[in-house]
Amino acid sequence: MAIIIHDVGMRDGLQVETTVVPTERKVAWIEQLIASGIDAVQVGSFVNPRLVPQMADTDAVCRHFADRMPARTRLTALVLNEKGLERGLAAGVRDFCMGVSASDTHSRKNTGMSTVEATARIIATAHEAIDAGARVQLSVQSAFGCGFEGAIAASTVTRIVSEFVDAGFRTISLADTAGHATPRQVQSLFRAVQRAAPDVVCACHFHDTYGLAMVNAWAALECGVQSFEAAFAGVGGCPFAAVAAGNLCTEDFVHLLQRNELRGDVHLDALLALANEAEQLFGRPLPGVIHRTGPLRETAGARG
Amino acid sequence: MAIIIHDVGMRDGLQVETTVVPTERKVAWIEQLIASGIDAVQVGSFVNPRLVPQMADTDAVCRHFADRMPARTRLTALVLNEKGLERGLAAGVRDFCMGVSASDTHSRKNTGMSTVEATARIIATAHEAIDAGARVQLSVQSAFGCGFEGAIAASTVTRIVSEFVDAGFRTISLADTAGHATPRQVQSLFRAVQRAAPDVVCACHFHDTYGLAMVNAWAALECGVQSFEAAFAGVGGCPFAAVAAGNLCTEDFVHLLQRNELRGDVHLDALLALANEAEQLFGRPLPGVIHRTGPLRETAGARG
Repeated sequence: MAIIIHDVGMRDGLQVETTVVPTERKVAWIEQLIASGIDAVQVGSFVNPRLVPQMADTDAVCRHFADRMPARTRLTALVLNEKGLERGLAAGVRDFCMGVSASDTHSRKNTGMSTVEATARIIATAHEAIDAGARVQLSVQSAFGCGFEGAIAASTVTRIVSEFVDAGFRTISLADTAGHATPRQVQSLFRAVQRAAPDVVCACHFHDTYGLAMVNAWAALECGVQSFEAAFAGVGGCPFAAVAAGNLCTEDFVHLLQRNELRGDVHLDALLALANEAEQLFGRPLPGVIHRTGPLRETAGARG
Repeated sequence: MAIIIHDVGMRDGLQVETTVVPTERKVAWIEQLIASGIDAVQVGSFVNPRLVPQMADTDAVCRHFADRMPARTRLTALVLNEKGLERGLAAGVRDFCMGVSASDTHSRKNTGMSTVEATARIIATAHEAIDAGARVQLSVQSAFGCGFEGAIAASTVTRIVSEFVDAGFRTISLADTAGHATPRQVQSLFRAVQRAAPDVVCACHFHDTYGLAMVNAWAALECGVQSFEAAFAGVGGCPFAAVAAGNLCTEDFVHLLQRNELRGDVHLDALLALANEAEQLFGRPLPGVIHRTGPLRETAGARG
């Protein structure tokens, strides 16, 4: 089974930083992520630039890459609605991520719509993207619990996934937006999804709010989840969640995979260089670990 | 199966801090750990005070508690040799932790003896402690790999465990001194130990050098390990290992257990107060997470 690494730090990380990263630096960081050999890079989101000024240059970033699409790495962008999709298509985006929150409260805060309304709307938007020749990955946010509502019923999540599958979508991400997931819950929810929709390719997205991003990602891997959203240096957090913290750290997770003889093709050093550069720019210690300790070198006598 | 929490921060944490914690503060922190309702607290180590000045007052700390032994919580102390044992017994210690490194290089650096020599020596010291009416937990350090030697053969670890069991000891801790363990290795090594010595009560001790302490502890729990060494706020590190980082964080791990309806009797707030106080004293962010985010409150509408 191939393990897919999708770095979302350029979107889910940068959107909460007070430092706005200049466009040229964003381009350089995306190039660094591509050079690492990971499978997908989320380059930004098409949201209201007044609400999220850190993402105001997403059109420019996407246009830069529109005629420089890397051969192996998919470049994705997040859109919330038709307007975002239009901007994305105009900027040459070919791979969209869209989602709906399983929590009504979170959904209304993010979109002004209930979960049911938002699900119908996002499916329509996703179909528009497909009709325009793009690819779409759909996600269920707050799938493991919500900072506003608390627990979310597994049946709510599987119902949304079934709607996505019935509408013709196959890659579905379950996002732990608030960081509430525990490893047993991860396994039980993904198994419920796999039972409800056996053909689905499962993706996951974990936040480290309670220190559990890595153990949840590992639990997901052990039950057959194939695609992992993560962020360089563990940056991140949703500005509209009640309490949020960084994402699963890309290079720390890749390091664990490599210790298990998985994804030996990813250049960890490229990811570490990026994490260190981001730490320098943001001027504070970022959550990841390996960019400080350095990766484990197995040679006898070496540090580590 | 009961899960046992053994906080070793007062030893494995404080020994690497440049700030020497005053004796009265140590006593107060130990009282706070006892008040939390965890099962065991390692209060210090009987080592050369010139080499580890942070532990120079271990005799005084132990004497303070000798006639104030808590009813539910065991107070343990680490000793490396006969001399340490004598000091511990004189200070009223009734529960000793002793160990040997599975890595010859690490063993020689720590004790001046090979692993084989050190194993015989520590078994003799442990028997002395038993003869004096004390209890002993034995451990295998560098069980999952060594910063100096790299990989450690599982057979080296199971051989030492078998020697400990043959000598009459039943609770054995495997310590990931350098933080090299991965979850699959944790499960494979503990299963090998369980096969080699079916009656053994397994304990574990993980460092977060590569961001894997939590996932390794969870892997251990899932394969039947009962006792978990951890440190408040995730403090820690061995000054004689090549690269070392904090321990599994006690309150973060207890929080995960409680989300799985385990150890609801532990007062998380007492642990959080201690972590925050330690962070204030040491004047830098400590590795734990929950003392900053706060625990997840399940009530709808609450933060978290």
